[in-house]
Amino acid sequence: MDGYAVNARDAFGATEANPAYLECCAELKVDEAPNFILKPGECAAIPTGGTLPEGADAVVMVEHTHELGSGTVEIRKSSAPGEHTMLKGEDTAKGDTIFKAGHKIRFQDVGLLAALGIKKITIQQKPRVGIISTGDELVEIDSPQKVGTIRDVNSHTLRCLVSEAGAEPVNYGIVRDELKKLESTLKKAISENDLVLLSGGSSVGMRDLTVQAIESMADSKILAHGVAISPGKPTILGQVGKKPVLGLPGQVTSVQVVMLSLVVPFIRHIMGQKDAFLTNDRPVVLAELSRNTVSKPGREDYVRIKLTLRDGDIPLAQPIYGKSGLLKTMIQADGLMIIPADTEGFYAGEKINIWLI
Amino acid sequence: MDGYAVNARDAFGATEANPAYLECCAELKVDEAPNFILKPGECAAIPTGGTLPEGADAVVMVEHTHELGSGTVEIRKSSAPGEHTMLKGEDTAKGDTIFKAGHKIRFQDVGLLAALGIKKITIQQKPRVGIISTGDELVEIDSPQKVGTIRDVNSHTLRCLVSEAGAEPVNYGIVRDELKKLESTLKKAISENDLVLLSGGSSVGMRDLTVQAIESMADSKILAHGVAISPGKPTILGQVGKKPVLGLPGQVTSVQVVMLSLVVPFIRHIMGQKDAFLTNDRPVVLAELSRNTVSKPGREDYVRIKLTLRDGDIPLAQPIYGKSGLLKTMIQADGLMIIPADTEGFYAGEKINIWLI
Repeated sequence: MDGYAVNARDAFGATEANPAYLECCAELKVDEAPNFILKPGECAAIPTGGTLPEGADAVVMVEHTHELGSGTVEIRKSSAPGEHTMLKGEDTAKGDTIFKAGHKIRFQDVGLLAALGIKKITIQQKPRVGIISTGDELVEIDSPQKVGTIRDVNSHTLRCLVSEAGAEPVNYGIVRDELKKLESTLKKAISENDLVLLSGGSSVGMRDLTVQAIESMADSKILAHGVAISPGKPTILGQVGKKPVLGLPGQVTSVQVVMLSLVVPFIRHIMGQKDAFLTNDRPVVLAELSRNTVSKPGREDYVRIKLTLRDGDIPLAQPIYGKSGLLKTMIQADGLMIIPADTEGFYAGEKINIWLI
Repeated sequence: MDGYAVNARDAFGATEANPAYLECCAELKVDEAPNFILKPGECAAIPTGGTLPEGADAVVMVEHTHELGSGTVEIRKSSAPGEHTMLKGEDTAKGDTIFKAGHKIRFQDVGLLAALGIKKITIQQKPRVGIISTGDELVEIDSPQKVGTIRDVNSHTLRCLVSEAGAEPVNYGIVRDELKKLESTLKKAISENDLVLLSGGSSVGMRDLTVQAIESMADSKILAHGVAISPGKPTILGQVGKKPVLGLPGQVTSVQVVMLSLVVPFIRHIMGQKDAFLTNDRPVVLAELSRNTVSKPGREDYVRIKLTLRDGDIPLAQPIYGKSGLLKTMIQADGLMIIPADTEGFYAGEKINIWLI
């Protein structure tokens, strides 16, 4: 603080009515190392960030002092040792652990590293996430279109979401509905990545093929043939050795919801974030639901929400309904409302946390 | 959907007890363009993503059918025209505006661009944010340290936060407490950036110098000499011509809070986000406050919060108190709790939204 460096004993008990009087022996500059010892009865003018001289143990704020001229300063407030000062090692001292393994470096951590004069640190490599698109109907987005072909949308949204989560997406292109080809691509992707996503067609045949391809790998296991979320039910959870392999639904909206609800937290978990499944990493806004919204108990519903901002009130949340094969609902949506599996829905007027997307 | 392409009229009124019977005339592949016309009384097996033949206007899910052999299919559920189908142009049609100016491209938008076969788009340039560090005591983080020098922490945290917000940080280094030098650096920074941040010492002298430097610019205005938030009060809001110039507090914690509460939303506003001041862009988690927390009415308090995760319950939020000149509180914190200006604080046990940091 801007003020006077004092020995707290000299200002003990000082008040407006009964001030202490000290002799100002120096005017310190912020970048100055004081080369004197403060004697009893003395003080020294000091700016914020300045270094205390030996003999001083507190700073009295300039607002609580009055300069009387000829070097005498009236101190109008009592001071305690350590007041308005910072000690060497108070932020961090030699031998302290500043970050544990698995810690994600945040802006404030960069500040601490700067304060310690550390310009370079070694960080963990980003996990690699292999992405395989499957389906006879899929073509690259710049391929000529004809009836019966569909541009491969999902690998592009997956790539964005994987990057946003902090991992490295690795694309394996489009694989036709052919077990041998899928097996060899899957094998390669598993060996080169920490997690593999199969973005498949949603047909029963395609799902069977994904399951067969996973099961054909050595030391493989299918953990679940579906998950109780909507949209996103036809999701296959598998593992090969210690590596997770997920078969994602083909519907463009379903796959995005599964990424946000399951895969992104999973990526954060792989990256060492200890609370990855308990917190979400998306901004949330509190909004008022515009209409009654019903959900089947037993499944977690992700309802697309359009937010309308209102002056002097929290935003209005309007559910958007539509086919999970259309991109429209996610494009129109500003957020998602989660209706938990043990809830039958929410009433109009309820205040709900909306995940912004 | 996997099922049978039908003309809805042929399956109208069908039930389990009173099914309709149709002749299966073809088994369509997903990547096939049908080259026949479906006649009354006929159906065609179709996979998810397949293309309807002429004459068909709905799909009956395979779950609601039964193959009787010799080509006859029992339809056990009524169908309506358009059911389980998607129309050409249903997601977006020729001439539609898909994104308005100022729209930030999200993962789902990349999906829509992919669906439209668009590989490249023109986006707005990132706003440039000039960062000037001021203070005689400041040295570069790799300079030798001696008593009276402080490593320049703030320009590094500012750079992180500016990048996170989507803008381009431009560093102008450390300027000593000297009006002429500060004026010339500020002039250069204003001409080269969309927003200028002066990260100053917190001493009264330093604040005066920042104000003088801003006021010395042509067409300049000081809009506020302080803001009602804590920590972060000694923030100077100014403008030069149409460009905002902000004098930020020097205390390491204060400046981080001001960045999160004021500057980051401002950057998002410059980037064209229409609701930048009404929503925050940080993840939020609902937590239970561990103790009564008092705040002076008339100022918005940003209390640093340590979250403790609990099994089967929302996290516990413990306030962290400490000097705003120390980095420690922000490093230990998992989030910030905002106590609005019209509130005297919160009680232990209250459920509060915590901004994750």
